[in-house]
Order: sequence, then C-alpha cells, then structure tokens
Amino acid sequence: MSILVVGTVAFDAIETPFGKTDKIIGGAATYICLSSSFFSNKINLVSVVGEDFPKTAIQLLKNKKVNTKGLQIKKGEKTFFWSGKYHNNMNNRDTIETQLNVLETFEPIVPAEFQEAEFLMLGNLMPSVQKKVLDQITKRPKLIVLDTMNFWMDLFMEDLKRALKDVDVLTINDEEARQLSEEYSLVKAAKKILTMGPKYLIIKKGEHGALLFNKSEVFFVPALPLEEVFDPTGAGDSFAGGFIGYLEQTNDISFENMKRAIYFGSVMASFCVEKFGTEKLTNITQKDIDKRLQEFIKLVKIEY
Amino acid sequence: MSILVVGTVAFDAIETPFGKTDKIIGGAATYICLSSSFFSNKINLVSVVGEDFPKTAIQLLKNKKVNTKGLQIKKGEKTFFWSGKYHNNMNNRDTIETQLNVLETFEPIVPAEFQEAEFLMLGNLMPSVQKKVLDQITKRPKLIVLDTMNFWMDLFMEDLKRALKDVDVLTINDEEARQLSEEYSLVKAAKKILTMGPKYLIIKKGEHGALLFNKSEVFFVPALPLEEVFDPTGAGDSFAGGFIGYLEQTNDISFENMKRAIYFGSVMASFCVEKFGTEKLTNITQKDIDKRLQEFIKLVKIEY
Repeated sequence: MSILVVGTVAFDAIETPFGKTDKIIGGAATYICLSSSFFSNKINLVSVVGEDFPKTAIQLLKNKKVNTKGLQIKKGEKTFFWSGKYHNNMNNRDTIETQLNVLETFEPIVPAEFQEAEFLMLGNLMPSVQKKVLDQITKRPKLIVLDTMNFWMDLFMEDLKRALKDVDVLTINDEEARQLSEEYSLVKAAKKILTMGPKYLIIKKGEHGALLFNKSEVFFVPALPLEEVFDPTGAGDSFAGGFIGYLEQTNDISFENMKRAIYFGSVMASFCVEKFGTEKLTNITQKDIDKRLQEFIKLVKIEY
Repeated sequence: MSILVVGTVAFDAIETPFGKTDKIIGGAATYICLSSSFFSNKINLVSVVGEDFPKTAIQLLKNKKVNTKGLQIKKGEKTFFWSGKYHNNMNNRDTIETQLNVLETFEPIVPAEFQEAEFLMLGNLMPSVQKKVLDQITKRPKLIVLDTMNFWMDLFMEDLKRALKDVDVLTINDEEARQLSEEYSLVKAAKKILTMGPKYLIIKKGEHGALLFNKSEVFFVPALPLEEVFDPTGAGDSFAGGFIGYLEQTNDISFENMKRAIYFGSVMASFCVEKFGTEKLTNITQKDIDKRLQEFIKLVKIEY
C-alpha cells in the first residue's frame, strides 16, 4: 500500500495577529506528507522546487519516510513563493505576493515505481496540472482525493470540472462549495457537487469543523476549541494528510471509516494551527495524536 | 417543578431572502414558552403587551399550558414591535424598525404563585429589567439562565454585568462572547466570562452549533445541516426553551444533563428556522422531536 501525493513544495512568508515569519518551508504537499507520515510509511511525492530549496528540508521529508524521487529540482530556477497576511479573525487572509517561479512551467512526472499507489492525493494546484497527473496514472488508484480552492475556480473552473470527473473525494471549504455549486445551502451544494464526479465531499469549515457527505448521508466532525490559533496556513492540507493517511493505514474506504479518517484529519489540523508553518507537525508524537483524538471524541460524546 | 419565563411578547415583521411577513407574533418569551412547552407543563410567563395584542395569541400560549397570569395587558397602549431584514448569509440582519411601546415603561411583576419556580429563564431583555426580576424573587431558583445580546452590551454593559453576578447559565453568541470578555479566542472568552458570575456558558454559533463551557470542561453540539433556513428569528430563544424545558423535565442540572439539554435546545432551534416566525414550533409533535434528536446524534456518532 502507498500514497501518491502531488502538490506544491514552497516557501511561505506569513503574517498573523500573533507574529510574522520570514521565508519558511511550506506548500500543500509538504503539509500533506508531514501529516500523513504519522499514519503511512509509503508516501511518494511528486512536486517541483528550485535550486534555492534547502537540502535540509528535503532531508526532513526523507526522514519521515517520504520518497522524494518525484520531486523535480530545477537548476537555476527559484521555488514557488507565497506570502500572506491573516486578518484578526483568522478566517480571512490577503495574499501579499505570489511568485510562481518553477510552478509556471511545472510538468508533473509520475515515476514508474509510483504507478502502483492505491491512494492518490492531489493537493491544491492548478487543475490542469492535477489532470495531467490523473492522465499519467495507468492503474486507477483505489481512492483519488482532490483538494482545490476558490483561486482556481475563479480562473479555471472548466479545467477543474474536467478533473473532478475522475475524482472520488473532493475537499473544499464552505465558500468554495457555494461557488462551485452556485447553491447557498451546504446541503443543496453537496447534492449538486456529488453529481459532478466525486462520490464523497468534505466541506472544511475551519474553526467550525467539517462535514462529510455521500449521496445519502452526512457526518460532522467538530473543530477543537483552542486557546490560540497562531497560523491557519496548511490546516486544510494537514487535514487532508491525516484523512488519506488513516485510510491508507487501515485500507478501508467505507463511509464508516471515512468518518474516523476525518477525525484524524481534524486532529492533525488542530496541531498545525498551534505554531507557525510546519513547526508543530514536526514536533508531535503518536501519543500526542492519540491524546488529542480522545479530546475530540469527548467534545461531542453524549449518552441518553 | 415549574419554569418562570421572563421576556418579550411582541409583533415582528421579518424579511429574509425567502420572503417577507407582515406583523406576526414573536418575542423572546413567546419562543421560549412554545419551545419549553414540549418538555414542561408548568410554565409561568412574566411579560407585557398592549391592548392591540390578539387574544387568540394569548390563547395559543394557554393551550400549551403556559400560565399567563404574569402577562400584563396595558390598556390603550401598543405591543413592542420589531422589524428586521436578514442578509443573504442569514447570519447577519439589519433592524429596520423598533417601536418599544409598552416595553418603555415595563415594570415586571412576578405573581406570588410564581415565586416557587425552580427554573428561571430570563429571556433577552433590558438588563435592568432582568435584574428587577432577580430582585423580586424571594427564594433562589435551582437554576437561573440569562440570555442577552450585543445591543444591551453596547448600551448597558454595567447593568448587564450586575445582573450576571446572580446567574448560573449565560447564553450568548460568539460575537457577544468576544464583546463581553474582550477576548478573541472563545476558550479564553469563556474562561473570563466564567469569572463574572455564571457557572456555565453557552456560546451559540447558529449554523455552526453551540459550545457549553464550565470551568474545566467544554462540550459541543452541532447544528443540523438543513436544506433551507427560512427565518432565523427566535432560533436562540427556541434553543433556550428546549434547554431549560429539558432540565426542568429531568430535574437534573449536572453538566452531563446539560449536554443532553443543549441537544434538545438545538433540536428546537432547528425546527424554528424552517418556517417563518413561530409557525413550525406550533406544528410539530413529540415524535418529530424524538426523530430529529436521532438525526443530531447520528450526525456525530463515531465508533473506534
């Protein structure tokens, strides 16, 4: 069993009401790999960086048993860079600067040895690039999960809809679900999106938890009320990593098991936001994860 | 066992993206009484209306076993009137018109036979009026619940803080919790508010559920994802009615039982918003409530 992770590996510069970072390691695939590494030891990464990307950061992923053979390192080019500033409520952010750099011409190449992945996680990336990965896969994975965002809906909605046709699980936030479906009610939005390709839809609501839909059922996982949210960057990717990591570990893609998987996703996201960037994800243990899962369960446990 | 409900009985005119009503029956106490009547048959109302208030509406409350002896009917005066318009997201609303009318000079009088109430629900009302009720009570009820809103915090924060000292449970929404505590994090806000008098705090988050805090624990109840929310008016009051109604019915004010009670509160709120005004609350049965409770439980039920 293995997971194929496709997404950005990047530099981020982040400002929140609690502080400010210089260029730190980020990118959707980085968070997904770090998060899923707590559940799986066969994680295969397809991404691209420039020559400026530190070897120590690649080594960090390798230490987490991530196979970086699919990570292209472009000589003389620069790594994708994003900088953003979060508002006081932490739910909204402004992009200050985006330097696409190596992403501008990124042609994903799935190494032959990655072709057998049973779980494919397409992290937030240009939809046409996500589609190129789907088109390279010779044997259909057991489960394909795609994450995307409003930015791509604004620019490349048709490309996104094409990619969605091949996908099992879509993960987006509430506003994106409304934009994609043109429905305000999330229940109606989910119904419509589940006719576009995905059999499952996860709507991430940040501090308000997440919803998992299939055609006939809905399940809700809360977010843990936290004393402080330092930096929401990567929370959605950490969620996706915990989700797909747990599914791979258990090799069970039933709706019942997806319920458990989104709990682990929420657990990983709750850690992610407690420090800047990837700091917290690189400093927790399996014991921390188990303990926090119990907090989540206790938060909603009721007996009648 | 009985519940003393204090709050407004009013006319509302409501506009939502789904439609518009003329003057209909509303007011916090109306919703609280209707909602709690599914759990308790000893509900005692203290409020005030004008001569223009329809006898049929009072009869409706009496039919629900609400004792209206404390409902003052002011000859030649007019009932409190509020009109508001909800934005597309239903989370925000603008007040179009407020005619205080009888509320301007409202002096609550608790009839002698209501003095023995074990449960006191102080619905959203001017804090000094809520305090006047507290000062009239000769025997302290087993549980005092107070609901309020940002409007009173803006105008009469000191009065509100005085009333809070005598209260067991405070119910407010997330923005109000932030305003009252001057803390952004809801966990920090709760800690601070629980030093102001209340031993329990319920933070209502509308479509995002509700949190119940005591000094050392937190519990979360989700909101049911609904196809349509027609009119959020009275949802918080219906929540409060279900909450205190269930506590009275079970005569158990432990934290464990409060968890069950906020489930019933959420169930009642979920019905309330499905039609305009009080329409839905007057057209459901015990069976509907039991069925919906099961939907809530299923929404978060997980087995590991």
